[in-house]
Amino acid sequence: MKTRIAICGYGNLGRGIESQIPKNPDMQLVAIFTRRDPAALPVGATPTVHIADIQNYADHIDVLILCGGSATDLPEQSPQLAAAFNIVDSYDNHGQIPEHMKKVDTAARSGGKTAIISTGWDPGLFSLLRLYTEAILPAGSTASFWGHGVSQGHSDAIRRIDGVADAIQYTIPIEAAVEKAKRGEAAGLSTREKHRRLCYVAAMADADTARIEREIKEMPAYFADYDTDVIFVSKEELKENHARLPHGGCVIRAGETAPGHRHTLEFSLKLDSNPEFTASVLLAYARAAHRLNDEGVTGALNVFDVAPRYLYPGDPAEAVRRLL
Amino acid sequence: MKTRIAICGYGNLGRGIESQIPKNPDMQLVAIFTRRDPAALPVGATPTVHIADIQNYADHIDVLILCGGSATDLPEQSPQLAAAFNIVDSYDNHGQIPEHMKKVDTAARSGGKTAIISTGWDPGLFSLLRLYTEAILPAGSTASFWGHGVSQGHSDAIRRIDGVADAIQYTIPIEAAVEKAKRGEAAGLSTREKHRRLCYVAAMADADTARIEREIKEMPAYFADYDTDVIFVSKEELKENHARLPHGGCVIRAGETAPGHRHTLEFSLKLDSNPEFTASVLLAYARAAHRLNDEGVTGALNVFDVAPRYLYPGDPAEAVRRLL
Repeated sequence: MKTRIAICGYGNLGRGIESQIPKNPDMQLVAIFTRRDPAALPVGATPTVHIADIQNYADHIDVLILCGGSATDLPEQSPQLAAAFNIVDSYDNHGQIPEHMKKVDTAARSGGKTAIISTGWDPGLFSLLRLYTEAILPAGSTASFWGHGVSQGHSDAIRRIDGVADAIQYTIPIEAAVEKAKRGEAAGLSTREKHRRLCYVAAMADADTARIEREIKEMPAYFADYDTDVIFVSKEELKENHARLPHGGCVIRAGETAPGHRHTLEFSLKLDSNPEFTASVLLAYARAAHRLNDEGVTGALNVFDVAPRYLYPGDPAEAVRRLL
Repeated sequence: MKTRIAICGYGNLGRGIESQIPKNPDMQLVAIFTRRDPAALPVGATPTVHIADIQNYADHIDVLILCGGSATDLPEQSPQLAAAFNIVDSYDNHGQIPEHMKKVDTAARSGGKTAIISTGWDPGLFSLLRLYTEAILPAGSTASFWGHGVSQGHSDAIRRIDGVADAIQYTIPIEAAVEKAKRGEAAGLSTREKHRRLCYVAAMADADTARIEREIKEMPAYFADYDTDVIFVSKEELKENHARLPHGGCVIRAGETAPGHRHTLEFSLKLDSNPEFTASVLLAYARAAHRLNDEGVTGALNVFDVAPRYLYPGDPAEAVRRLL
């Protein structure tokens, strides 16, 4: 019996899920739900359905993967849909995760469903590495670095500035900080010391580029705390050279077990396609959500709550033989 | 209530456990069991007890950490002791793990106890990374590399050769193979292409060093399949320059989500003290064993069966706030 997957939200991540289903022979895609007019979307092998009709599909879906954004979509959709579907989401508003988890938990329990929230690579894989390495090496410090890669949130923030036609923002870890983290000296690093930001901006004709640059560099939270470079390019160059969505990063923990006995643990990712990789993580947790629900585990879980064997597509005994 | 830990076997790993307990404020060391005459061991803060008396301590120990070897100690001790104690072991004979797990499971269930077997960094942390990365990136290849570091097993094998006074063997990953693995080309690599072996040997006076070198290089399983270098040094130099036990290694998975969309995931360790780091991993799983037993989960488990939150020393809700 394959895990019947449905997608809710057909943007970059939703298309990533669609593209990665064939890599998982134990899964099949049964529907794509969208807020747009389904008739306006290209016709593919999978039925595209308006989100208003989603409840009619409850009996035909094992796990619904929510592919909306964390700003407005997921805070509403996850609690709303968790009562009728096993769900997986990638909610990444770190400060609000406990509240999100609580709301989803109430909904999921009411319907006897299983929700795995805040999956992906950060939160997600990086969170796992932060927990494992800290639990194992209690005397030490951990640092997470993101990039070299495109931040969609920061790119969007630039696009909202008056006079900007399009923009792409790269987050870049600062090598000196990475080296400090490997030596266990990450504790004192400031935001500015850890990452810099590089923005490629296509301005509209006659726009005041000096003002745009100033508005970017002074934008609170997004750019003000970083050294930021702004490079103006044509719309054509942006499309040609900056259309891919690479990303990556690393989690480093360094600590000592005795004076002079240092240990450095590092997990790093280099990703050619952030949406496709994030989709791959969500699919592995969709498998886990389906199995956990079959075992009677209901409510909201996060990556810390899920034993690794639930992610393995085959028999756990095979995982022991092959991978332990 | 602290987790009351006891050590069974007082070699490198046992001393590692003893040294790392103070790094874990939620644990206390209550006894060290040994096959030697306890009176002959240095008197420390912890009672040292002959292993023959271990059953008298069952009510005073939450988790017994088995620090013996995988060749003869653990196959006997783990099933024997799992009926009366929650145990953690580092059984690393990969081919025999399923059988070991089965025996320990029967014993642990009979006594209502929890056993976590085959922990450490490989098997252990590296196994976790192999499973997570394969489940997440199903189309790809994984390679594990060990070193630069001292292999106790290979050092011991050299020491057993006639005419050898002492020896230390370093396992060294071959950089070209590591680079291939990062490009997703690990599948075809032979044993010889992945690692080489470097042996520092102190020969006895008048020993035939040419014969010793030949015996090392031709030793089946241990050295014959590798490019091996043998360097003869004095016993003094061996003590002075090769007494530490560093180790490390990496797990690399590389794969594609679409043609040309490559993803490389790498987990690496650099360890100044292999026994102290391995001990740190065992202690994190001792915490998990205690908690799981409190929750009524009995039998033999491995790292794939344990949800990450059981390793975190504090409240799981705190882990979510701090690390997710």
